[in-house]
Amino acid sequence: MASLADQAIRWHEGRLVLLDQRVLPNQVEFVECTRVGEAVDAIREMVVRGAPAIGVCAAYGVALAAREHFAVSPKDWIEHMEADLHALVQARPTAVNLKWAITRMRDVIQHTGPGDPEPVLLKAARKLHLEDVQANRALGEHGASLLKDDAVVLTHCNAGALATGGYGTALGVIRSAHAQHKIKTVYADETRPWFQGTRLTAWELLQDNIPVTVICDSAAASLMREQQPAWVIVGADRVARNGDVANKIGTYALALMAREHGVGFMVAAPTSSIDLEAASGAAIEIEERSQRELTEYHEVTLAPAKAEVWNPVFDITPAGLVTALVTEKGVVHAPCEEKILALLQG
Amino acid sequence: MASLADQAIRWHEGRLVLLDQRVLPNQVEFVECTRVGEAVDAIREMVVRGAPAIGVCAAYGVALAAREHFAVSPKDWIEHMEADLHALVQARPTAVNLKWAITRMRDVIQHTGPGDPEPVLLKAARKLHLEDVQANRALGEHGASLLKDDAVVLTHCNAGALATGGYGTALGVIRSAHAQHKIKTVYADETRPWFQGTRLTAWELLQDNIPVTVICDSAAASLMREQQPAWVIVGADRVARNGDVANKIGTYALALMAREHGVGFMVAAPTSSIDLEAASGAAIEIEERSQRELTEYHEVTLAPAKAEVWNPVFDITPAGLVTALVTEKGVVHAPCEEKILALLQG
Repeated sequence: MASLADQAIRWHEGRLVLLDQRVLPNQVEFVECTRVGEAVDAIREMVVRGAPAIGVCAAYGVALAAREHFAVSPKDWIEHMEADLHALVQARPTAVNLKWAITRMRDVIQHTGPGDPEPVLLKAARKLHLEDVQANRALGEHGASLLKDDAVVLTHCNAGALATGGYGTALGVIRSAHAQHKIKTVYADETRPWFQGTRLTAWELLQDNIPVTVICDSAAASLMREQQPAWVIVGADRVARNGDVANKIGTYALALMAREHGVGFMVAAPTSSIDLEAASGAAIEIEERSQRELTEYHEVTLAPAKAEVWNPVFDITPAGLVTALVTEKGVVHAPCEEKILALLQG
Repeated sequence: MASLADQAIRWHEGRLVLLDQRVLPNQVEFVECTRVGEAVDAIREMVVRGAPAIGVCAAYGVALAAREHFAVSPKDWIEHMEADLHALVQARPTAVNLKWAITRMRDVIQHTGPGDPEPVLLKAARKLHLEDVQANRALGEHGASLLKDDAVVLTHCNAGALATGGYGTALGVIRSAHAQHKIKTVYADETRPWFQGTRLTAWELLQDNIPVTVICDSAAASLMREQQPAWVIVGADRVARNGDVANKIGTYALALMAREHGVGFMVAAPTSSIDLEAASGAAIEIEERSQRELTEYHEVTLAPAKAEVWNPVFDITPAGLVTALVTEKGVVHAPCEEKILALLQG
């Protein structure tokens, strides 16, 4: 894959190089991180976003942190890592992939021998990164198998190569289905407030010559009534033990609309996004971001000065509204705790 | 009422003066129309918007047209009116109020005597304008009577003084309820793609010191789950004979969410918005506007150049999802054709 979207996260000559998703599609710019603090900032400020992608980014961030601390304290660098690991996990609260990636990297840290830890941790980060791409390719095939020919699908936010280590989750399913000539067209919600659909999903799909039509989030119900899409396909920031799904704000409403119109509702996510410690969606913290995402756009003020704003950027879709949870290990139809545990143990 | 929002449409020294809703809340500017073509353009370009407001604007436009044609052809000015009346009705397709206003003004035209028609038509336009405000005050009281104390309500788009001759429909209900100290807070959907909620509703409510919190349209379902609003209150661009409601894109999805969460769904509209010739919502033309509303904001480009866009700006909410249709003649609970006909005949 030579697609630019598949190079959104790269390790190059000792630096973590991130495609800056804040300025796409107008500008193709890269942010280089040589210190872990820069990686934390990049996650927090959404240079890189998407649950699997920030997990991959955090793994590379651990390598950066180890390099910094080993240079200063070759003997007890591990003791100095904890604050950075904590900062990486806390950079954004809703996606479980940060915690998952740091847990994996922490295990590698414990098993490093004496000497420079960077190569070992870098190798582990690269492995985690590669596994994410492989998981997406596998779940893409699983998801595509659920689609019939001439499928019209609707997606929300960006769950593409840009949101993952590469290939994408929801867009991975769409890419696989497109390769099988099953996709008639993709509708992409613009996805307020950050316009991930307009700016990122439309850009990414067009890079692969997959036909895409942007709609405002509010038009999804009309689309379902008039165009009868076969599936809504979304990613996930976290899947709870019972199958509840935390994903971009608006996902829950889409699931309600899909049920009303007999449209399938597919959640595509690697098992690294499943959090068995969250019994249900109620246990998942929903991030709220700056009011300015709603009151301003670039230099333009939208709201009167005294208006209050509520800006939760994720919501919870109850498991009961999910037709299929698609992972690299297979498809869970009508997910529930029992089926999810069986999948993970299988 | 000295509120600026209540002066959005004025006749002043022979000119139709419109508050330019395209540049609120950052700038308070007025567009003056001295010719009917300017009034048509103002409606089409959304200097003035909202179903009742464009009806009122069109009525004044008829007075402008008569002045123009009488000046040139004092004998047969009426024969020259038809193209302008047609242009006013066609300026926007979804709201029925344009047709309604022109039908009323056409009747007045037929009964003008010899001599300058402007004073007669201006008087008729002022009467129609005043009646709209009176209808809104009456329906505001009817709607407010349905609210209990400490009500949290959610509104979509702007169905306020700015969208009507004055006082507002959905916001008329909220204003009346606020005067009765029943409103705890109002949530306003930002309302993509034109940001009527952020730009207009928040501005208008704050002018009256009514507390307002803006959310993105996609957050409405989370709001319903977490804040349990008592009512969603919206206006209407057209109500069909069977009670189906054409209103701003996103209204239908809100109605689905409201049913799911046991939230009341109130449509506030004067009887001038009821179109008995439309048997159901299927008969109502849904306006589609420029793709640029989704691909650009001011000077900022959002979408990649080759992305397709679908931009329907209204949708149809089935009557079965409407808890109460609130008009100046009273409240219709669970509206249907029989009840609507009874209301209009009553």
